[in-house]
Amino acid sequence: MERTLIKNLKDQINSEVLIKGWVDVRRDHGKLIFIDLRDATGLVQMVALPNNEGVVESASKVRSEYVIEVKGKVNARPEKMVKEGVLNGELEIEILELNVLSEAHELPFDSETDLNMDTKLDYRPLTLRSKKDRAIFKVQAEIVKSFRNFLDSQNFTEFQAPKLVGGDAEGGAEVFKVDYFKNHDAYLATSPQLYKQILAGVYEKVFTVGNVYRAEKHSTSRHINEYTSLDFELGFIKDHTDVMKVLNDLLVSMVDDLKTNVSTEFKLLEAEFPETPKEFPSMKLREVQELIKKETGEDSTNAPDLEPAQERWLCEYAKKEFNSDFIFVTHYPVEKRPMYTYEDEEDRGFTKSFDLLFNGIEIVSGGQRNHDYNVLVQKIKDKGLDPESFSFYLQAFKYGMPAHGGIGMGLERLTAKFLGLDNVKEATLFPRDLNRIDTLLSK
Amino acid sequence: MERTLIKNLKDQINSEVLIKGWVDVRRDHGKLIFIDLRDATGLVQMVALPNNEGVVESASKVRSEYVIEVKGKVNARPEKMVKEGVLNGELEIEILELNVLSEAHELPFDSETDLNMDTKLDYRPLTLRSKKDRAIFKVQAEIVKSFRNFLDSQNFTEFQAPKLVGGDAEGGAEVFKVDYFKNHDAYLATSPQLYKQILAGVYEKVFTVGNVYRAEKHSTSRHINEYTSLDFELGFIKDHTDVMKVLNDLLVSMVDDLKTNVSTEFKLLEAEFPETPKEFPSMKLREVQELIKKETGEDSTNAPDLEPAQERWLCEYAKKEFNSDFIFVTHYPVEKRPMYTYEDEEDRGFTKSFDLLFNGIEIVSGGQRNHDYNVLVQKIKDKGLDPESFSFYLQAFKYGMPAHGGIGMGLERLTAKFLGLDNVKEATLFPRDLNRIDTLLSK
Repeated sequence: MERTLIKNLKDQINSEVLIKGWVDVRRDHGKLIFIDLRDATGLVQMVALPNNEGVVESASKVRSEYVIEVKGKVNARPEKMVKEGVLNGELEIEILELNVLSEAHELPFDSETDLNMDTKLDYRPLTLRSKKDRAIFKVQAEIVKSFRNFLDSQNFTEFQAPKLVGGDAEGGAEVFKVDYFKNHDAYLATSPQLYKQILAGVYEKVFTVGNVYRAEKHSTSRHINEYTSLDFELGFIKDHTDVMKVLNDLLVSMVDDLKTNVSTEFKLLEAEFPETPKEFPSMKLREVQELIKKETGEDSTNAPDLEPAQERWLCEYAKKEFNSDFIFVTHYPVEKRPMYTYEDEEDRGFTKSFDLLFNGIEIVSGGQRNHDYNVLVQKIKDKGLDPESFSFYLQAFKYGMPAHGGIGMGLERLTAKFLGLDNVKEATLFPRDLNRIDTLLSK
Repeated sequence: MERTLIKNLKDQINSEVLIKGWVDVRRDHGKLIFIDLRDATGLVQMVALPNNEGVVESASKVRSEYVIEVKGKVNARPEKMVKEGVLNGELEIEILELNVLSEAHELPFDSETDLNMDTKLDYRPLTLRSKKDRAIFKVQAEIVKSFRNFLDSQNFTEFQAPKLVGGDAEGGAEVFKVDYFKNHDAYLATSPQLYKQILAGVYEKVFTVGNVYRAEKHSTSRHINEYTSLDFELGFIKDHTDVMKVLNDLLVSMVDDLKTNVSTEFKLLEAEFPETPKEFPSMKLREVQELIKKETGEDSTNAPDLEPAQERWLCEYAKKEFNSDFIFVTHYPVEKRPMYTYEDEEDRGFTKSFDLLFNGIEIVSGGQRNHDYNVLVQKIKDKGLDPESFSFYLQAFKYGMPAHGGIGMGLERLTAKFLGLDNVKEATLFPRDLNRIDTLLSK
């Protein structure tokens, strides 16, 4: 008999079926034994009736997380017992035969208990099976898929960026050093930035998805040391606003995809879909600072960036004023941005760069890049770096490069913000931080 | 005026257009200057006519790789000048205005010259712009897309595997060590294997695409130290043949996608599409060894694996006998395979594992995995490893795991084999090996 997936049981009322999955929970009610069975597609309630002694015996032995296969009859529930709006709320499986495929030890805790973060991560292979975690990483898979589908539809070309590099691309973030072969220092890439630009010189419009690494000794709810970066770059732009437009359209399309494909997961996680106007509001950093000064009295007009509390304030403002959960902040000062950032000729000292804030936090960094070889060499010098050590990268500019720009955004942080999760680690399958790197899984 | 992409010019005969791109080549023919302009979508021939002095002057200054924008008139070519079967073979652009967007230094070599591998890689940002390299990595992007689309269509869930791990997953391959935070040893993952299995315990069917690392001191045409691994894993299988079936279907579907979407690139690279029967031939390792002994007299019946020359021989045999460019070899000995490999109960000492050979080389490794906790613990001990150090991974099995299996394949090697490239580095954007890691791009 072919296996029936649990989501398809509703088409099999009164038939006999074979289903397989994990025991979500077993409940004994007098002489009746109820088992909720879970597979990748959903959950169904099954019952072992007292007149079937063999079944009662095998049913009474299974515990949560046992993997079993069941031959059963799909019975419609009496009208009074129907659970509206729940998968298989209108049916129940009468167990005719039950075989154990894999036993499970007794669980260290109930599967839907609210655990503290450390326990949750210590038991990740088990805790990922909880309803909530399955929903989180289903949404994450959909975010990545939507990112790629949108860029595919815009004729971007995907490429694979190396993560093992001869140096720190941005000359800023702290990096992890790798013991490479003799005579070679190697580091884990903090970003695919330089490769992305090189590839924009080949295919004009490119994107890449992959891990990046920051060696900062963080222990906050917003940072992890290994994360997944979603990056795109496009050539022949007018300025940074062309990049903002693509990003804006991408996020509008992403929210549409999420509504279509994972609204059940959003509902389960009690998350709201964000407001995504066709054109997100945008302000220069200095305008934001002036606004904050005017509205709150707090004077930070000379600061090179916004403080976390200011980011939160600005997002509330954007929601109230523009009904948008997103707002762009542009024109960060030259000294605050990496050497590849394009300085605005009409606003010297400030760059054609932007951050995108979402629900109180920066989720994207982007901007126009320097494409002129001579300008770029000068910008590298201005940062106190040595152009000679960038000569590989500089080839892309020596041999003709159009005006271009792009963005990078962290998948885990984006997932957390969409779902209203407080800690980015909740949206990271196996987070690495100052104190954690699967130490239990060692050589 | 809006930019017209070069592939769309054919719809604009007799119109004025704005096009942008790189100068592929300039040719001076007496008083006429011809410029081939290249953008991401194709190539077009343009001409500067002698009666337009301003245009002649600007056209005479540009060299290969200059980035320019051109206002021009799309003229149909006289019938005798039409190039059949070539994009824009039926038209030519008369340059009305030419602006330089970015200058290029003189090239160190002609852009379509056949270079040796080292020079090619030293100048990667430039050499990637060659017709051949653009085609190779376009095909690679299509391979990845097709891999994901097929698995999406089969309801696999994508996940992001960590690359920074507390130990070497397979306890075999040499690993790169990373200077992580105090008290923590860290390594670069040689495979997402253990995480993939953990996730099969959550979503049943999963896949992941990402970089993996091997620290072997290779300097061959078949190996690189950082490559992109395409991995999937699926639960509730009967045995390894279920995995082989999914892989078989995936490759058939991939070749269809390549025929549909990148046949131009295959033609340019003079590559043939492989023969993909609905069911690839399959032999046990010992059967292959007996066959080789019978056909060639070479006795390797006790060897734990095939030699490269034997792999090539077997692929020729499969082509001749079964008209297949693919052949499975199954049942490698227990001692040759990692601890997670499932031993065949009916063929003790041999595993339900397989390699898939394609055009003379192994491109996929896969098989059924041990899903029983007690068996797995014993297999870990049998390999001389300590189960305690795998306790994180072992949780997945302690708490109920269905029979499962999966595969891993290297994207770069697969690309190279599809395209008949001799060296896997030709199919790697920025290859890392014993002697190369973008040393020019240092901190």
